[in-house]
Amino acid sequence: MNSTTDYGVWPAAATPLNADLSLNEDRFLTHCRRLLDEGAHGLSLLGTTGEANSLPVSERMRALDVLVEAGIPGGQLMPGTGCCSLADTIALSQHAVKNNCAGVLFLPPFYYKGISEEGLYTVVSRVIDSVMDSRLRIYLYHIPQVSGIPWTLHLIKRLVRDYPDHVVGMKDSAGQWENTQEVLETLPELKVFPGSEAFMLPALKIGAVGCISATANVNVRAIRELYDNWRNDDAEAMNESVIGVRRIFEAYPLIPAIKEILAKQYDDREWRCVSPPLEELSISQKRALESQLAEAGNNN
Amino acid sequence: MNSTTDYGVWPAAATPLNADLSLNEDRFLTHCRRLLDEGAHGLSLLGTTGEANSLPVSERMRALDVLVEAGIPGGQLMPGTGCCSLADTIALSQHAVKNNCAGVLFLPPFYYKGISEEGLYTVVSRVIDSVMDSRLRIYLYHIPQVSGIPWTLHLIKRLVRDYPDHVVGMKDSAGQWENTQEVLETLPELKVFPGSEAFMLPALKIGAVGCISATANVNVRAIRELYDNWRNDDAEAMNESVIGVRRIFEAYPLIPAIKEILAKQYDDREWRCVSPPLEELSISQKRALESQLAEAGNNN
Repeated sequence: MNSTTDYGVWPAAATPLNADLSLNEDRFLTHCRRLLDEGAHGLSLLGTTGEANSLPVSERMRALDVLVEAGIPGGQLMPGTGCCSLADTIALSQHAVKNNCAGVLFLPPFYYKGISEEGLYTVVSRVIDSVMDSRLRIYLYHIPQVSGIPWTLHLIKRLVRDYPDHVVGMKDSAGQWENTQEVLETLPELKVFPGSEAFMLPALKIGAVGCISATANVNVRAIRELYDNWRNDDAEAMNESVIGVRRIFEAYPLIPAIKEILAKQYDDREWRCVSPPLEELSISQKRALESQLAEAGNNN
Repeated sequence: MNSTTDYGVWPAAATPLNADLSLNEDRFLTHCRRLLDEGAHGLSLLGTTGEANSLPVSERMRALDVLVEAGIPGGQLMPGTGCCSLADTIALSQHAVKNNCAGVLFLPPFYYKGISEEGLYTVVSRVIDSVMDSRLRIYLYHIPQVSGIPWTLHLIKRLVRDYPDHVVGMKDSAGQWENTQEVLETLPELKVFPGSEAFMLPALKIGAVGCISATANVNVRAIRELYDNWRNDDAEAMNESVIGVRRIFEAYPLIPAIKEILAKQYDDREWRCVSPPLEELSISQKRALESQLAEAGNNN
């Protein structure tokens, strides 16, 4: 009953907002259920795509509660819990563990820059010591182009060595293939999720466990099909098609673009709402995105 | 009784922490009172030096309450209120206004990078519209080397034009003299506080109103003396001495170095505690810092 999924295709679920920027619980539950129905192995909640840092801590907890109370098993959920405040990170991680979550996505504290490896090590070790629960499974969230703070290979090795039961994986959203490769080769026991389906196929071949993807919000079936067939002859063709869709989205501000297409899929304009400083796509961007997706034969 | 100070020397007050990283209220009050006694015109709380982003929102509110409940007038206090979450920024700004604060130090939301001017404009305007109180006075906090998000001159001009009663000032911690100069020349009505006493004298000469400074935690008397005498013949000599102390600190991680010296001044090692990922100075750093300060004739 508390079984945990630790591989496969994990959409980085978008967070539907009300006009006052609070979580829209109904839309969130509907969307998360749909993603699982369409083939997601699990859901990475409240990350960059989920606009977690734009939400108060209480609202982040509520988002997880909504899904768990509706019967989605914690073992299929991986909420982001890394905040600038260590106390907030601890509180969110405890809350995730209490809900038997598959793991927590651990963004490093990202306000201060140029911080030391030792300082980051201390953050992780204090969270582990404070939560003090064998169920805590940390996935380090490496997205230095946004956070400004990398999880270096040297630090990851120390953490895995010292906390093998807790530091179990990584979401690698840096898009630096050489780094992904080096991590996989150096730490084969680490469960590495590339942060984009565009890297999933080559990464699976060298030991990655799946992917966590923003665009899986709108294209999860195809990504799941690729995952299920990655050893087959037609994997390359599936991969090309999946990457084609990804590349279209990457030409736009990613979160507003995903919410735009979700608004279209759900025929629900409220889905467009993003939390400032993010902005909805412009009219011309919306049109261009739609027509590019139509041209690519993606009927989403 | 609700008079507001909007000029002078404002230490960016350090935040004393307990071992569990919660606010130490007694030490905080003692320190803030001392800074005012020693000549600070007001206190900039809960900024970068104050490790605000390492504290939960509730703790940030409590820090302000501690001072106000003890009788320090809100008109001498300028808490940082800018968070990644707009809802948090609004709540903290409302709390500051309720306490008749001199202003709020407004860090832009700093998680997402490469965001648009329009998106940042929307953040500020939504805070103003939500707080909806004539007492709200915003000081834009420009520290792009940490936040990753600049307040550009073009955006500042728009905000001052559209919200002249609310967007009244700026803390400029970028250390780019040409930018400080351009802002002062373009917007003489804006109350500009350079983020270091090292820029105070030249900035006062072209219209700045004082400075907000981390090192004023340990050197406020001398900075105040410079401020009071900036038009006098001996200002240059005072300035050299003040800058000398500043430069010593700048060779170390600034927040741990300030807390180290405060621990010495208060003869209270608990003052050394910083919130991870920041770290205490190493033993050798502590010794070098002390001896450099002694050599510079600073008896702090």
